Amino acid sequence: MVVIGVCLAGSGVYDGSEIHESVITLLALSRAGATVICFAPDMPQMHVVNHLTGEVSPNETRNVLIESARIARGDIRSAADCSATDWDALIVPGGFGAAKNLCDFAVAGASAQAHPEIARLLQETVAARKPLGVVCIAPALCATVFRGSNVEPSLTIGTDEGTADALSMIGAQHQPRNVDEILIDETNRIVSTPAYMLADSIAEAAHGIEKLVDEVLKMTASSECSS
Amino acid sequence: MVVIGVCLAGSGVYDGSEIHESVITLLALSRAGATVICFAPDMPQMHVVNHLTGEVSPNETRNVLIESARIARGDIRSAADCSATDWDALIVPGGFGAAKNLCDFAVAGASAQAHPEIARLLQETVAARKPLGVVCIAPALCATVFRGSNVEPSLTIGTDEGTADALSMIGAQHQPRNVDEILIDETNRIVSTPAYMLADSIAEAAHGIEKLVDEVLKMTASSECSS
Repeated sequence: MVVIGVCLAGSGVYDGSEIHESVITLLALSRAGATVICFAPDMPQMHVVNHLTGEVSPNETRNVLIESARIARGDIRSAADCSATDWDALIVPGGFGAAKNLCDFAVAGASAQAHPEIARLLQETVAARKPLGVVCIAPALCATVFRGSNVEPSLTIGTDEGTADALSMIGAQHQPRNVDEILIDETNRIVSTPAYMLADSIAEAAHGIEKLVDEVLKMTASSECSS
Repeated sequence: MVVIGVCLAGSGVYDGSEIHESVITLLALSRAGATVICFAPDMPQMHVVNHLTGEVSPNETRNVLIESARIARGDIRSAADCSATDWDALIVPGGFGAAKNLCDFAVAGASAQAHPEIARLLQETVAARKPLGVVCIAPALCATVFRGSNVEPSLTIGTDEGTADALSMIGAQHQPRNVDEILIDETNRIVSTPAYMLADSIAEAAHGIEKLVDEVLKMTASSECSS
């Protein structure tokens, strides 16, 4: 039985995990017969955004783990209670929560810092040679986590030059990809896809995410064979 | 271009629209090339439920339209601004929000009342002979809306006898169906599927929902040919 960790960051594109990307990931994993462990950091969200107006609700606070539980239907763990030994691979969907809560790339750019428990889990996963999939803006989290280490990930966030430049400043190798494509970093076993960084529809986002899930599962199988 | 209305009720299985069911519906519609109009009532949620603990948060209030906007990525209308002339068919995903916000079936059972704008939109849709799809517990909303009218819908909520009995008391004809099946009410052009009333996984839920979306789109095409 293959077990895949899915790292959530709240519930909603502007302040949490992108809901479509998260559900498409969970659906593709379920269809492949994988067992999923959803987890999130137990911390306040950086922002609560009114998704009708797009504006920050200044007097409202929400917890990342509690809001992520909406996407996970309550079946979720705190990141602090997880270890990369729990899974065969890890996938991080996108949404601003990946760049506001899992790290602060959305406001700090190239000087971003990652949440320490999330950094630990990505580092453990890559150190164990287990595949890591990062969707949409989550490559910014990946770059942040491995800044200054001997892991120099190759990543795509699509074609946005400003974001790509910030990733390069952090020390990642950025390569442009289309919405229906994935980028495979064979050295570090990291897979990325642009999803809603480029997608004009949920069907477009699903195209790349399903390829990413397939590739992560294929890599997981290959590591099982070689171990 | 086929246009499908999708009626949301918040964002989260315990107090809003079931997120997986909503996203699976949107994905299937997008893949079929349909244009989607998401809408929700502009009103306070009956409850805000902490999805980590399953308990009601007694001091918290959220707005159904604003929370639904999370699933719709901000592209959503108030139900009051919609008319069945806006779409070719209407689909209502499940989740407790369908039985707490769109109507109060979750607390009132067979004596439930529907939100007036939602009742109007379902009535307009069925009166115009446009297909209506209801997922999971949303058949309880449908039964509530048409109680005492000359529309006596045939519906399924799966196999739960208590819920089925309540639907029968309201005046609907309940027929059991499995998670991978749909029930087609040819007379009223209403399609239902159990989804998470029975599903043990998101893949199981998707199986029935994708059949429902296919059938609703097929019915829409047949009405276009005959008009």
